[in-house]
Amino acid sequence: MPRKPLILVTNDDGITAPGIRTLINVMTTIGDVVVVAPDSPQSGMGHAITIDSTLYVEKVVIDDGPQQEYSCSGTPADCVKLAIREVLDRKPDLCVSGINHGSNSSINVIYSGTMSAALEAGIEQIPAIGFSLLDYSWGADFEHCKSVVKTITKNVLNHGLPKDVILNVNIPKNQNAINGIKICRQARANWEEKFDKRTNPMGKDYYWLTGEFVIMDHGEDTDEWALKNNYVSVVPVQFDLTAHHAIQHLNSWKFES
Amino acid sequence: MPRKPLILVTNDDGITAPGIRTLINVMTTIGDVVVVAPDSPQSGMGHAITIDSTLYVEKVVIDDGPQQEYSCSGTPADCVKLAIREVLDRKPDLCVSGINHGSNSSINVIYSGTMSAALEAGIEQIPAIGFSLLDYSWGADFEHCKSVVKTITKNVLNHGLPKDVILNVNIPKNQNAINGIKICRQARANWEEKFDKRTNPMGKDYYWLTGEFVIMDHGEDTDEWALKNNYVSVVPVQFDLTAHHAIQHLNSWKFES
Repeated sequence: MPRKPLILVTNDDGITAPGIRTLINVMTTIGDVVVVAPDSPQSGMGHAITIDSTLYVEKVVIDDGPQQEYSCSGTPADCVKLAIREVLDRKPDLCVSGINHGSNSSINVIYSGTMSAALEAGIEQIPAIGFSLLDYSWGADFEHCKSVVKTITKNVLNHGLPKDVILNVNIPKNQNAINGIKICRQARANWEEKFDKRTNPMGKDYYWLTGEFVIMDHGEDTDEWALKNNYVSVVPVQFDLTAHHAIQHLNSWKFES
Repeated sequence: MPRKPLILVTNDDGITAPGIRTLINVMTTIGDVVVVAPDSPQSGMGHAITIDSTLYVEKVVIDDGPQQEYSCSGTPADCVKLAIREVLDRKPDLCVSGINHGSNSSINVIYSGTMSAALEAGIEQIPAIGFSLLDYSWGADFEHCKSVVKTITKNVLNHGLPKDVILNVNIPKNQNAINGIKICRQARANWEEKFDKRTNPMGKDYYWLTGEFVIMDHGEDTDEWALKNNYVSVVPVQFDLTAHHAIQHLNSWKFES
């Protein structure tokens, strides 16, 4: 019998979040599961790593599943680094991150701790997938995500992923209307922040970051289009940020000052 | 007389770091300068943003230059968001970030607070450049960076940048041997972490993240090659992470479970 795949599970909402509990639950039906996840929520951490501070990792038991679990004081990217170098005794066959409580579609991939963990695994040449549900609430219903997660995961384990490519999967909230799975490109969008300015009891001004998400790009090949039309969006992402198309243009500049 | 360009300056080492002081000094010879930078070092923060906490911004005077300066409790990406929405009364003509104490070449762009600030400005369609010096020390000598920074900045102000492209500029440490400025692609490289495991006075294990930088890619068109050969490297970077080349391949998958 072939060895079961070794699957590393992490997230950015913290090891007790319902989203990661669902993900662990699905993964234990597919392989041997080791969880190394943050001990507290890390949303919006982008690809932060812990350089100037100490990291703690503690073995924990959270439910009666067959997985091994470790709670870590660091960021999602730290969790993956620690898992690979210190916790696991062999390179995992797959790393999955999430299921995030909230969208990581379009530009949100840049701010996403969920996706930074997946990217970190990708940099280490481990096939990796980030999963997110379009529901920010802690009590979000992840039930309809299970079959989606299983289908995509099995495809990745069977086919592998192209070199240096990681999948960013977003799942619509409405479980009754999912039309299928669509491979997409990242839509051009951004956040129009509104800072909510307040004054603290000591008379000092402070701000809360709030904002409105603005999609400038309505292409039918985008993740935003797919999600709006109740498809699961799958965007292949890469960590080579080079804008290759711009190199020739910039070479026409004269750099003599 | 044409209006002077409005230049937003930020960094991730904190507003008092020698690197940003040098950058401000150069920028005041080119335009009207407003500084919004972190009140403390934020290295390794990636593209973190502050969602669950309050943000403070305070007007400060650090030297006798003509610039206006604001110190902010947030991350580099927060600084840019706050600058655009709350501090500046018009959209800046340019955003420069740095000069970072240490390299942001190749995969380091992913972990870089310096580059996340520049990317954030790019997302807001502001021409943006991140500058880094290959010297991690606080007492690094930035003198030879001045002419490089000025040349590249003037080129960007004169030519503009291609849509959704940001420049990642790294400057060699050795000031006597700089051979010129090279447009490059990001080298494929990664960090092989070694976690330094210790035990705290209470008997609990903890880790420090350390590691060795490993370059797998010795192409003469890479930033690592340029820097090794004492060129300034300029990599055009983008925030569309889509691996466009992988879309067709993934479309061959059958997603029926």
